[in-house]
Amino acid sequence: MNETPKTSRRGFLAGAIAAGGATVAAKANAAGDPAITELQDWSVALGEGVDARPYGYPSEYEAHVKRRSVEWLTADPVSSVNFTPLHELDGIITPNGLCFERHHAGIADVDPAKYRLMINGLVDTPLVFTLQDLMRFPRENRVHFLECAANSGMEWRGAQLNGCQFTHGMIHNVMYTGVPLRYLLETAGVKTNGKWIMPEGADASAMTRSIPIEKAMDDCLVAFKMNGEALRPEQGYPVRLVVPGWEGNMWVKWMRRIEVGDQPWHHREETSKYTDLFKDGKARRFTWEMDAKSVITNPSPQSPILHKSGPTVLTGVAWSGRGTIPRVDVSIDGGKNWAEARMSGPSLDKSMHRFYYEFDWDGSPLLLQSRAHDSTGYVQPTKSELRAIRGENSIYHNNGIQTWYVNEKGIAENVEVS
Amino acid sequence: MNETPKTSRRGFLAGAIAAGGATVAAKANAAGDPAITELQDWSVALGEGVDARPYGYPSEYEAHVKRRSVEWLTADPVSSVNFTPLHELDGIITPNGLCFERHHAGIADVDPAKYRLMINGLVDTPLVFTLQDLMRFPRENRVHFLECAANSGMEWRGAQLNGCQFTHGMIHNVMYTGVPLRYLLETAGVKTNGKWIMPEGADASAMTRSIPIEKAMDDCLVAFKMNGEALRPEQGYPVRLVVPGWEGNMWVKWMRRIEVGDQPWHHREETSKYTDLFKDGKARRFTWEMDAKSVITNPSPQSPILHKSGPTVLTGVAWSGRGTIPRVDVSIDGGKNWAEARMSGPSLDKSMHRFYYEFDWDGSPLLLQSRAHDSTGYVQPTKSELRAIRGENSIYHNNGIQTWYVNEKGIAENVEVS
Repeated sequence: MNETPKTSRRGFLAGAIAAGGATVAAKANAAGDPAITELQDWSVALGEGVDARPYGYPSEYEAHVKRRSVEWLTADPVSSVNFTPLHELDGIITPNGLCFERHHAGIADVDPAKYRLMINGLVDTPLVFTLQDLMRFPRENRVHFLECAANSGMEWRGAQLNGCQFTHGMIHNVMYTGVPLRYLLETAGVKTNGKWIMPEGADASAMTRSIPIEKAMDDCLVAFKMNGEALRPEQGYPVRLVVPGWEGNMWVKWMRRIEVGDQPWHHREETSKYTDLFKDGKARRFTWEMDAKSVITNPSPQSPILHKSGPTVLTGVAWSGRGTIPRVDVSIDGGKNWAEARMSGPSLDKSMHRFYYEFDWDGSPLLLQSRAHDSTGYVQPTKSELRAIRGENSIYHNNGIQTWYVNEKGIAENVEVS
Repeated sequence: MNETPKTSRRGFLAGAIAAGGATVAAKANAAGDPAITELQDWSVALGEGVDARPYGYPSEYEAHVKRRSVEWLTADPVSSVNFTPLHELDGIITPNGLCFERHHAGIADVDPAKYRLMINGLVDTPLVFTLQDLMRFPRENRVHFLECAANSGMEWRGAQLNGCQFTHGMIHNVMYTGVPLRYLLETAGVKTNGKWIMPEGADASAMTRSIPIEKAMDDCLVAFKMNGEALRPEQGYPVRLVVPGWEGNMWVKWMRRIEVGDQPWHHREETSKYTDLFKDGKARRFTWEMDAKSVITNPSPQSPILHKSGPTVLTGVAWSGRGTIPRVDVSIDGGKNWAEARMSGPSLDKSMHRFYYEFDWDGSPLLLQSRAHDSTGYVQPTKSELRAIRGENSIYHNNGIQTWYVNEKGIAENVEVS
């Protein structure tokens, strides 16, 4: 799965480098750069030792790389959201400290010794598991994206937020370790009329959602690790539900109970919220799967092009709740012409994918777009195509193509093209 | 690559769960558990909001999950080592904050604005790159383990360190984003007599190693991201060399220069250090590739079995500098009988792999061993087999099979079996 440099594109890239690389780097004999001609502090003095940071943290020079909220969206921070700084990241793994947050009653601070998971309802034997009990079931490791249904929601009514962190940052992509939910349900014994489950959070909002038993028995995980270590408090420590490919609010955090029932519960977060209001005023419920989507992370409004012209790397991320992303197209002229991007990194089911497009920028303005194709053949639509079907009443499930306008100074902004 | 639950082992696992699962969980009607019958603090009060932690950190209940050093190894912390807590992790990704450290002159605190990378020596055009220059070359994303040549080195003379963190914790496994070194060398133009490169660190030790040009042009990366975000200072911020599958000291951190030459330099860290002293007093140089190796992380001396008997999950990690790990065997009787472990998670080239072995513990003492097979057909040797060839003078490249003795109380210790 790891990409080796021996791709068919190697010849193209090598040619591009031979042509462009020399214009990128300075000749070493260019005199007068004190960063070369003078010894730096860090080369002449001993640095901190191994006991300085038993748990490490980023360089002080990276302090700008952080989750951010939007003031007018976050009047109440305990029932609010912040955003992953996609424009500062690369590859496909989101570091745990930068995974966006969405809380309905703030971060529950759960003592793992007092953690319990109950399974009740239409089961042969209602059961209660401690954290140690869960660790005695077989585990799996899988990388999955989690996207909030409201990601890009502010963009339904036109370009509003100036940065991919804000337009697309309600997503993260993490390797989970957990027990397949199926194993726990099989242990309790689901009765023949058990057709739905309702996971419930231990936070003060007691978050609940209805999930069909087929999904619960298919690929859901009762997860306790993210990227190798314990879940972070803001991501459901000690246990959250992983519902691959489905909208983020179903991935119940601090999960304390799973009820098995014969029909959905129609609770608040699947009726009043997280439903799609259509043009005619009717609301569509249970839009679980996240459709294929992509965004260019660099350049973008928070990440301008820092050189005047010449070899330029465009990059972004793409994902689909229905499978993998075999292909992403990129346009630099607002969708008139498209070129296939280069994918790099593991292509995993219901996981974020990374794409690149290297081009020789002539210094003139650009209209950048990306368009994801998923493994089912589905192609990411334009915003116009989405609105034609969905109207403009929606908040959720906006997977339309994003456009960045880049001016001749390399500065980008959020725009729409007709 | 993601494992789905629909493996051939599903029948076996489901059977094991039906048999053992009910003994693991408590019946829900077992009264008197206040964690179930009483409302917990986190369920009745609002938690912290989204602005509390712009860059997140682990739960306070996970404070014991940290890098540790060994006092008698670390008289001088700036030229020393600490260890990854493998027994606290799962999956295959090592979180950045827990990646082990090995410094020769402490942690260089490099200002990225003053960072430069020079390529000189046997090239057509000596070049200097800023960090922004590097970002204009095509990038790749790959997951690779980095293992110190001295990992398990203290075990050459018998079982010494009581915990996999200390015996095997000089390893981490991370997704890197970087520019293939080949692109930079091709830009400078390697002369026909350029057969070796020498990367050099910007820290006060000016760490250097000789690397053959074939490896440099094959799969080395000039990396600036790990697990999505900037390299950590202790891992070479802002730029380190990635030398997939080869011993960790070659992965030069804070890399400021690459010299191209016609022969190896035979510097200190490839002559006085990081060579293998044989029985006859001769030293083998340039033992670059890390052979296949594995270790059981749980149970282990720092991670006892916490129940008396019944369904038990054994897990561990395996890796090879020569490819992937298609198979790991596990023994619970000191190598007399072996069973094939279950692999879970992406199988990536020169990356850590995760294995599990679920068994029904009868409560009697165990002698746990794991044995990795790599994709070249190589099988991890016993310590006796290694010593028969290598003697006992070595410090480096100990990939022998590790044994943990587990007593009837579930407590494990580091032992050797003949």
